[in-house]
Amino acid sequence: MSQRIPETAAIAALKEAAGPGNWTADPELLAPHLRDWRGRYQGATPLMLMPRSTAQVAAIVRAAGTARVALVPQGGNTGLVGGGIPPADGSSMLVSLARMNRVRAIDPDGLTMTVDAGVVLEAVHMAAAQVGCAFPLSLAAKGSATVGGLVATNAGGVQVLRHGTMRALVVGIEAVMPDGGILDQLTGLAKDNSGYDIKQLLIGGEGTLGIVTAAALRLVPAPEHRAVAWAGVPDPAAALALLVRLRQATGGQVESFELVPDIGLQLVLAHIPGVRAPLAGRHPWHVLIELAGPAPLDALLAETLADAGVADAVIAASAAQAAALWRLREALPEAERLEGPAVHHDIAVTVASMPAFALAAAAQVEAEFAGARVIAFGHLGDGNLHFNVRPPKGCDQAAWLEPRRAAITARVHALVAAAGGSISAEHGIGVLKRDDLARFGNPAKLAAMRAIKAALDPLGIMNPGRVV
Amino acid sequence: MSQRIPETAAIAALKEAAGPGNWTADPELLAPHLRDWRGRYQGATPLMLMPRSTAQVAAIVRAAGTARVALVPQGGNTGLVGGGIPPADGSSMLVSLARMNRVRAIDPDGLTMTVDAGVVLEAVHMAAAQVGCAFPLSLAAKGSATVGGLVATNAGGVQVLRHGTMRALVVGIEAVMPDGGILDQLTGLAKDNSGYDIKQLLIGGEGTLGIVTAAALRLVPAPEHRAVAWAGVPDPAAALALLVRLRQATGGQVESFELVPDIGLQLVLAHIPGVRAPLAGRHPWHVLIELAGPAPLDALLAETLADAGVADAVIAASAAQAAALWRLREALPEAERLEGPAVHHDIAVTVASMPAFALAAAAQVEAEFAGARVIAFGHLGDGNLHFNVRPPKGCDQAAWLEPRRAAITARVHALVAAAGGSISAEHGIGVLKRDDLARFGNPAKLAAMRAIKAALDPLGIMNPGRVV
Repeated sequence: MSQRIPETAAIAALKEAAGPGNWTADPELLAPHLRDWRGRYQGATPLMLMPRSTAQVAAIVRAAGTARVALVPQGGNTGLVGGGIPPADGSSMLVSLARMNRVRAIDPDGLTMTVDAGVVLEAVHMAAAQVGCAFPLSLAAKGSATVGGLVATNAGGVQVLRHGTMRALVVGIEAVMPDGGILDQLTGLAKDNSGYDIKQLLIGGEGTLGIVTAAALRLVPAPEHRAVAWAGVPDPAAALALLVRLRQATGGQVESFELVPDIGLQLVLAHIPGVRAPLAGRHPWHVLIELAGPAPLDALLAETLADAGVADAVIAASAAQAAALWRLREALPEAERLEGPAVHHDIAVTVASMPAFALAAAAQVEAEFAGARVIAFGHLGDGNLHFNVRPPKGCDQAAWLEPRRAAITARVHALVAAAGGSISAEHGIGVLKRDDLARFGNPAKLAAMRAIKAALDPLGIMNPGRVV
Repeated sequence: MSQRIPETAAIAALKEAAGPGNWTADPELLAPHLRDWRGRYQGATPLMLMPRSTAQVAAIVRAAGTARVALVPQGGNTGLVGGGIPPADGSSMLVSLARMNRVRAIDPDGLTMTVDAGVVLEAVHMAAAQVGCAFPLSLAAKGSATVGGLVATNAGGVQVLRHGTMRALVVGIEAVMPDGGILDQLTGLAKDNSGYDIKQLLIGGEGTLGIVTAAALRLVPAPEHRAVAWAGVPDPAAALALLVRLRQATGGQVESFELVPDIGLQLVLAHIPGVRAPLAGRHPWHVLIELAGPAPLDALLAETLADAGVADAVIAASAAQAAALWRLREALPEAERLEGPAVHHDIAVTVASMPAFALAAAAQVEAEFAGARVIAFGHLGDGNLHFNVRPPKGCDQAAWLEPRRAAITARVHALVAAAGGSISAEHGIGVLKRDDLARFGNPAKLAAMRAIKAALDPLGIMNPGRVV
């Protein structure tokens, strides 16, 4: 790992590699790139490189190798684990992919789209819609998150249940490897068994094995009909049983199935302007359901809800109503932020075991840390919940939380590890969870990770100190 | 790479690691494991190990490392590229996973199934069906091919269009790494972003980076309705246009879409007993279509075929008729084998470019090798065709073919490489295509592959001489 501050000659070589105008050392321009949106990481760097082409990225990586200077790639800076914020010692150069933002090609017959790493997710959605297709991955940060970051973190979101994470949606990538070579696997082949699938290491590699410069994405035909419902349920087990029924009744047309506890809904109603309670009654848990398919689905959805004994539910009668229901779910992280500090976890266990695990883990944490309030919400159908622990109401939240933060996370991650789960379902490892991965990860996996990192990045210039 | 013949002490250590009764040196028992079903590879080994547990596989790998003896894992021995046949010099030991054949767990709610590596694909299908689910990957060798081999070769087949290759269907694996460590990633988590996804290297690694001992597989709810049709079309472009319409009309319920040239159908009618022509008219090309979903699909299929201007088509009126149509497609490799020798290729280009590519490449090969007959068939919707070149009718087929075999393959692979395609869409690299991968592969990918192989298997004991 490189930790010395780069010398003038090295910085000059990096500027030249990026090309005229494609870098900045202006502290004001750098500032927004040096802090994550949750405000947990503050980095420093003397230089941000802003290449406009893959060739420029390759030149930057070669220059960094020669000078033994570390690089930290950054997309939309929407990460949650500090993976894209350079270390505070100023030893690393930022590489922003934001200027590589062209949609290179769209093939609606082949259902693929090839885009630069800096293209924002929302732009991908719009480009797909223009040709009657959809890119079936969405998340709250879609207005800022870039394709390069989505690939590098194997992003998930609210449609994974049906369409998978980025890994399932990336049919090709282009990346600059740590030695400056260009991995050109962008053809968008649906099938290619010619040797190890190296691109899978870049997907979810968090920039530690190379810099993703472009991706070929899998599209789906835009569904003609959507049906969106909000339903109250007694507990997570009832929610999962409802999901199983819906999946059977619709033959796999369940696009999203999100679990929200009442405490989460109440936070949204308290902090987010212009929203209102979706149901007449009060329920301990809620689910947001979206079906998508070629034929109308409202009647099937209503019938399945009734068959499942769901007494209180609303089906959106218009796109605006559907958007209002989605707003309740998507505003939850923002409502949490407005409520005050919390300890966040992004955990997975098997789908079947999540209902029992979520309740048992919440009970255990609330018993062990008296007054703590658990908000577990999210992607029940993926076995993935965001398991956040809040201070008691009314106290000085930060004063309560900070001394307990490490112990709470250690407890939650130990419970997850004991259940054979993952301490990072979709947010990645970054800086935040590096030590816990080393503690809880399978030894053979960790050994393979370290061997691969050393083999592909022997100089340690690619996002050092992250993940592995 | 280990190439010396193992000494007595090494063999004794391997036998002990496997455990009593879990090995054979009997030439008669070894014989069927030393030849591939197409009869192109003849291997040799003094010993086949037949472990019954993951711990025994780990002990075998550790003993092999100590003795510097190479191991060749083998599942159902249905491979097409020689990857599972030990080298003819007798330097490698076979490791058969056939005795690890338990279904470990099925979770119909979570839609996963965990099985040993030696479980045969057809047994996976049956176990899934018993709980109202389906494992959506099938291929002609389903009665012999094992899960371990399917994982190690990232197998494809006739449902990739909708459900993806094995890579999309494997949610977890257990494998013994070259150092004897057990990679335990079997929990079957739908989402897990805790570090590099090492299992992706084992998937499609063809046994060169470790031995797969078990896999957690993704299931789907068993579809309640299927609709199967056979249609005549004028050319591959018309077939692709039909696929696009079907995909739009059915909202992604197209399960299979297989292209068959008339020359292929005629071979099946000539060589396979009990089959008959599916249509009244004669057509230059044919497609076999299967839709699957929760509601009846026959009417939608008929309507879409009519809308697309397909004049001659038949929709199966019963499961038996559907099976008869599928038999025409699935018997094609066997009919080819009965017709005589051919040069086989397993190529991919993008879906959109395949129709033009298939015709142009066939014309070029038939012009360059006078009298050659190209049979290009298979998975048009994946951009993947089996592009086989047969000798002229009436001549001494082997005498014509053998002197031209290398030149024909070189020409086909050069055309594919020029089109940005893959020389191995689904069969893998093995021994057969190792040199061509080194010639046509992306240099950055090849460099990464070699670095990873050296880092994870420094002793070179895992299926040496294959892939990389």
